[in-house]
Amino acid sequence: MNVLIVYAHPERRSLNGAINDFTVERLRANGHHVQVSDLYAMNWKAPLDAHDVRDRNADAPFHASLDSKRAFENGLQSRDIEIEQDKLRWADALILQFPLWWFSMPAIMKGWVERVYAYGFGYGVGEHSETHWGDRYGEGLMTGKRAMIVVTTGGWESHYSPRGINGPIDDILFHIQHGMLFYPGFDVLQPFVLYETHRMDEARLHATYDALGQRLDGLWDDAPIAFRKQNHGDYAIPQLTLRDELAAGKTGFAAHID
Amino acid sequence: MNVLIVYAHPERRSLNGAINDFTVERLRANGHHVQVSDLYAMNWKAPLDAHDVRDRNADAPFHASLDSKRAFENGLQSRDIEIEQDKLRWADALILQFPLWWFSMPAIMKGWVERVYAYGFGYGVGEHSETHWGDRYGEGLMTGKRAMIVVTTGGWESHYSPRGINGPIDDILFHIQHGMLFYPGFDVLQPFVLYETHRMDEARLHATYDALGQRLDGLWDDAPIAFRKQNHGDYAIPQLTLRDELAAGKTGFAAHID
Repeated sequence: MNVLIVYAHPERRSLNGAINDFTVERLRANGHHVQVSDLYAMNWKAPLDAHDVRDRNADAPFHASLDSKRAFENGLQSRDIEIEQDKLRWADALILQFPLWWFSMPAIMKGWVERVYAYGFGYGVGEHSETHWGDRYGEGLMTGKRAMIVVTTGGWESHYSPRGINGPIDDILFHIQHGMLFYPGFDVLQPFVLYETHRMDEARLHATYDALGQRLDGLWDDAPIAFRKQNHGDYAIPQLTLRDELAAGKTGFAAHID
Repeated sequence: MNVLIVYAHPERRSLNGAINDFTVERLRANGHHVQVSDLYAMNWKAPLDAHDVRDRNADAPFHASLDSKRAFENGLQSRDIEIEQDKLRWADALILQFPLWWFSMPAIMKGWVERVYAYGFGYGVGEHSETHWGDRYGEGLMTGKRAMIVVTTGGWESHYSPRGINGPIDDILFHIQHGMLFYPGFDVLQPFVLYETHRMDEARLHATYDALGQRLDGLWDDAPIAFRKQNHGDYAIPQLTLRDELAAGKTGFAAHID
């Protein structure tokens, strides 16, 4: 199988760099083909802007979604965007690897999502009407592909526990796992989270590799998170609210998992 | 009072641009001093990296937090970071204005947070031990200042309602409001959210200005979100879990609001 790892860390000689090397080696040892988009090494352009469209009329106001649509449909996207889209087409699985910075992904990776997920590719896919609100949340161009987050944080696991001060890790990651991965169609696996990165020694590093290795070995077989699909009857359309009889009385992110 | 608006939109001739103009005018009409950090116009450098530190040993591995600490303490930060920190020192209130992209702020604004929130400035403030986990979540250098998000989205309000498919807007914004604003000490006001930006006409724009204007007029008097402070007894330290008797049985983001 083909695996794309999108990786964001500013220093190769780091825990994240070591984890990235381990991940590539393990996947290759398992017979998979691997590509790494090392965003810092690529000097990836983070901000989405008018330069992302080739041959555009510089006098016309730039419209993020409409310009993206036109560029995607007409082969006028910036070349760096097209290359990443081709990697996603090639991939059977996507791994996003990053340190958790301010409770989200690093800016450079956010910019990868914003720019690579063009209108017609990452969103704006399928019929968009009052009766079908696009092919998204379980449908879309990434259908049949798997995705997993590999994330590190200095905080303790208890800080991200159900009543931890930072909020539960699943809720913290929801905007990525549900909003950026399930949205264009990926089956999203449970995240691999490494806490207390400041407390790392050889023994713990090897235990980490063992645990991560098992997750990588299960990339094709582990059950994905059971996010509810938008277009399979669970949601009223176009309001897109969960039907009363499902997860009755529940609100919040957890209601969107079956 | 002094208001800093950090604004991220790639096109000035846009709804966000108009809202930004309105906000500046309204605040000035109310007698306040206003500075705008227009991140796209400034060509703000989004990725946090080794170039953020002046005079560093290029052979040594870059460590995001330790290099930031050393640079902040020794006046070795990149000049663009220092300028933004001075604006925050000057400000009595901070407004973050942006379009909601992939359920978070645009990459360029995330990079503002990552780079401007240096170790010793945005985090790593105060005693950090097993009995006092830093001055954060209600304490820190931004104590006494107010903050508010002004955000636009194409989705419907129902899509962000308590059982809406995107997740409740308060939960979507939690990683920003709690994780990036309350964390360094800001009192965080309710966000101003404009939905269905594609459905905009003159009448609705004026209604929007009226509603936003009222919020801007209330910037000093409106009650902030009652996020629980870390160091006032609500949390066990160092586990940082909410004490059993508070919001008993509740989990998730809402438990952290009193």
